[in-house]
Amino acid sequence: MITKNKNKVKVIPLGGLGEIGKNITAIEYDNEIIVIDCGLAFPDAEMYGVDLVIPDITYLLNNSEKVKGFVLTHGHEDHIGALPYVLNRLNIPVYGTRLTLGLVKSKLEEHNMLSDCTLHEVKIGEEIKTENFRVEFIRTCHSIADACALAIYTPEGVIVHTGDFKIDYTPIDGEVVNIQRFAKLGSQRVLLLMADSTNVERPGYTVSETVIGENLTNIFGNAKGRVIVASFASNIHRIQQIINSSLYYGRKVAFSGRSMEKISSIAMELGYMHLPKEHLITVDDINKYPCDKITIITTGSQGEPMAALSRIASSTHKKISIQNGDLVIISASPIPGNEKFISKLIDELFKKGAEVIYDAIEEVHVSGHACQEELKLMHTLLKPKFFMPVHGEYRHLRQHGLLAESLGMDSKNIFVLETGQSLELSRNRARKSAIVHSGAVMVDGIGIGDVGSIVIRDRKHLSQDGVLTVVVTIDKQSFSILSGPDIITRGFIYMRESGDLIREATEVVKLELDKCMERKVKDWFTIKSNIKDSLGQFLYNKTRRKPIILPIIMEI
Amino acid sequence: MITKNKNKVKVIPLGGLGEIGKNITAIEYDNEIIVIDCGLAFPDAEMYGVDLVIPDITYLLNNSEKVKGFVLTHGHEDHIGALPYVLNRLNIPVYGTRLTLGLVKSKLEEHNMLSDCTLHEVKIGEEIKTENFRVEFIRTCHSIADACALAIYTPEGVIVHTGDFKIDYTPIDGEVVNIQRFAKLGSQRVLLLMADSTNVERPGYTVSETVIGENLTNIFGNAKGRVIVASFASNIHRIQQIINSSLYYGRKVAFSGRSMEKISSIAMELGYMHLPKEHLITVDDINKYPCDKITIITTGSQGEPMAALSRIASSTHKKISIQNGDLVIISASPIPGNEKFISKLIDELFKKGAEVIYDAIEEVHVSGHACQEELKLMHTLLKPKFFMPVHGEYRHLRQHGLLAESLGMDSKNIFVLETGQSLELSRNRARKSAIVHSGAVMVDGIGIGDVGSIVIRDRKHLSQDGVLTVVVTIDKQSFSILSGPDIITRGFIYMRESGDLIREATEVVKLELDKCMERKVKDWFTIKSNIKDSLGQFLYNKTRRKPIILPIIMEI
Repeated sequence: MITKNKNKVKVIPLGGLGEIGKNITAIEYDNEIIVIDCGLAFPDAEMYGVDLVIPDITYLLNNSEKVKGFVLTHGHEDHIGALPYVLNRLNIPVYGTRLTLGLVKSKLEEHNMLSDCTLHEVKIGEEIKTENFRVEFIRTCHSIADACALAIYTPEGVIVHTGDFKIDYTPIDGEVVNIQRFAKLGSQRVLLLMADSTNVERPGYTVSETVIGENLTNIFGNAKGRVIVASFASNIHRIQQIINSSLYYGRKVAFSGRSMEKISSIAMELGYMHLPKEHLITVDDINKYPCDKITIITTGSQGEPMAALSRIASSTHKKISIQNGDLVIISASPIPGNEKFISKLIDELFKKGAEVIYDAIEEVHVSGHACQEELKLMHTLLKPKFFMPVHGEYRHLRQHGLLAESLGMDSKNIFVLETGQSLELSRNRARKSAIVHSGAVMVDGIGIGDVGSIVIRDRKHLSQDGVLTVVVTIDKQSFSILSGPDIITRGFIYMRESGDLIREATEVVKLELDKCMERKVKDWFTIKSNIKDSLGQFLYNKTRRKPIILPIIMEI
Repeated sequence: MITKNKNKVKVIPLGGLGEIGKNITAIEYDNEIIVIDCGLAFPDAEMYGVDLVIPDITYLLNNSEKVKGFVLTHGHEDHIGALPYVLNRLNIPVYGTRLTLGLVKSKLEEHNMLSDCTLHEVKIGEEIKTENFRVEFIRTCHSIADACALAIYTPEGVIVHTGDFKIDYTPIDGEVVNIQRFAKLGSQRVLLLMADSTNVERPGYTVSETVIGENLTNIFGNAKGRVIVASFASNIHRIQQIINSSLYYGRKVAFSGRSMEKISSIAMELGYMHLPKEHLITVDDINKYPCDKITIITTGSQGEPMAALSRIASSTHKKISIQNGDLVIISASPIPGNEKFISKLIDELFKKGAEVIYDAIEEVHVSGHACQEELKLMHTLLKPKFFMPVHGEYRHLRQHGLLAESLGMDSKNIFVLETGQSLELSRNRARKSAIVHSGAVMVDGIGIGDVGSIVIRDRKHLSQDGVLTVVVTIDKQSFSILSGPDIITRGFIYMRESGDLIREATEVVKLELDKCMERKVKDWFTIKSNIKDSLGQFLYNKTRRKPIILPIIMEI
């Protein structure tokens, strides 16, 4: 627990620093805490069998009486996805813009907890207030509509959190980043800037979303058959542009994939996406129209094996299969780690006879994050006293720190921190403060946190060399073998080729049991451990593999 | 088996088409087969526990009396790495250039089989001959020295195989691609071109290796402490440039990592790399010199957890640890699938206090493969009658086909094939011919091919949800339970939290056994299968997980 500092503001990152995703930051003053975002992260390749990762909120639970609410920057999973799991344990109000809350609502409904939660819609430009804080929602631009930066007015000064952003002068909804407001804040005084670091390694500017729309329309113009476009379901402006290109050429539009259907319906209902009803069809009806009058907008742009596009490619989709003349556009770029999946997907689509257009071939996707020149603009507009890069791997934060230095900022005023490391601020001073409890909670199935490092380590081990179970039933009195040893393996060796090996392994176990009897070793723990050692050594010599060995002794 | 066609040439790709790596192609005429390259592939993320993948050479074994030899284009693993496994079963002569054979030799020595193999060194520009074939080795340029294209003169015409190549007008060894020779071949008649497709998605030209040397020297000029450079051990020209930059600033050079030590020593011995003896030190001696007089050249540019640089970063390297002022240069780009490893490595190095320069930040690496304009040059020089793209995923082959079409080639003369699909050629005709047996053989430890799809599927399953073993000892006569059921799990659930679940699961098994007794079901197969079903259902309801369940019944 952090000691009380009446006239200090604390910024406590509980996620999102030194990692991609799981964004959540607490701002604390006196008896109040407000929390920016509450996101999830997707498991990395080493988190075997884990479905998703949520932040450890022990610190908030230990200070639950102080926590006044969540303020959300935008509706992406890495900013709102952990809410159902967290609100369960810490039921406080949630503040966000219309679309963001629309997506939160749908999430809470799925978890059957909407009626227990308190959601407050905030209009962009408006403020919310607590005893010590005011929070202003300022329009930015990102790969989802209704994205905001937050200006948090504390008794010690203003903290600006950019959320995820880019500077797009020609956004699809015409709602440009509120540069004037940022300039105004900068001309007064910004105590601390926290800014998105995702694209800090990229020089220049992120291309405007509008350019992608023009490219898509050109590509649609050359399509002879159906057009199938995969994109992120939450990228509502991209979807709008795909719709626009479709309507321009008189194509009907069908949505495919659970999240695509869900989010597009929310976006249309809330007025963020526009598609005249007569042009919206379901995938059941796509065969009622000529091929060149059909667009299918689908999930699966990351090659996820269970998503719609992968099922279409592998002919396991119930309603859509690739036919000659189909043009597939993958309007997304690979999230690191997904490259191989996408590559496999593209190959499969080509083989099935589709034309495929993807990021490496034509400009059909643009990032939602600011590149170096946009970051410099934001820093220059806000002229903060202190700077703390957020949203990125450690190297991104580090490079963002260097970028701030290159703009003339004193390196002593730049804080490249890790999740859990709090920062203490007063009007003229900032310093690293306590390290609070933080971390990752793994969600597997309906288990939250019941899979930890030991289980993951075992899963990794199992994935490398499999498992070998050896069972023997022993007479408690005489210590003689009544049955077994029986050996069963999975994931270790191809059974048809393993006959001799398993027979020999059985002999190794018998020999070890004999030895134990001779030496009158009778505690099961030692016997099991000896069996494990001898058998492990034997198998390693024969195969250079180290399966997990489970010796089981049944006594009668 | 393919039927005899006295006056047809067959091109039989046994690997390398529709995949990265495992390059091997057979050329057959009458009673003779020659084989181009014999490479391995690295396992993809789905090949759990597999160390490497080699081609299935059943076709060659079935025609072993015909196979006259391997002709090698260059010494990378994906072109020579399977030789030790293949020569074991098919001991035929191997032809290659000096450095290529040097690397093959060292490989065969490691496998203790050098004395059983026949290696023939070929000088670039020279030919080898069999009854029906002549094979000419033509100088190209690649990210390893001594790389060649092959012109294969058959009774039906000339086949040109580019190997892996790029066009570098200012290569480090001064040995430029033999453009004149390719032009001469093109001015006569090339029947078939097989060309590298790896970089076909990239527009423009690959930058010259020389540029990287200049950049490295600039970066070295600003280094205050030690410079640690990671690169591919086989990229001998890159290593030479790192050496040159080091010598320019009076730095001693140490090599770290098994393959780096081995390959640099072979390259120096054969005269492909030059480092005056007095400037070469061992990692044991690095502390005897001032930091700004030391360069360490190391393996681990892909973030491989066991390679030297990762061990340095994680402080598990015995002799080298990161100190303030160290500059680490990662002079390589991520091989798809390795992005996350590298990202983690860079983060760790930054955290330990090193400066890190990598591909995304400065131009410290360049590809070894031809981009679109270079490919166009090669096609235009050779003007082949037929074209078969090689070396790439299916989408690369496909795009390479489109590139050839864009140069005016008739699409009927372009053959985008998959591994195993043979092509039959005569003077004026080419057509798809038989599909021969081909595939991937997985190597795990010292087992070759004893891990197949079932084992891999089990490993995947184990990696997701773990394993649960349930054992019960039963009296054969009375069918009563003598001991158990005992349940043991690994990788399924955190044990401390699983007490109730396991107790309940035990009851489920007992109940199922009771049911079987009642119904007088006495065959073990049915009983086990019933236990599996009930227990599986119970666990899924409780956890949404599906561990592999191994029911074991011991009878006495």
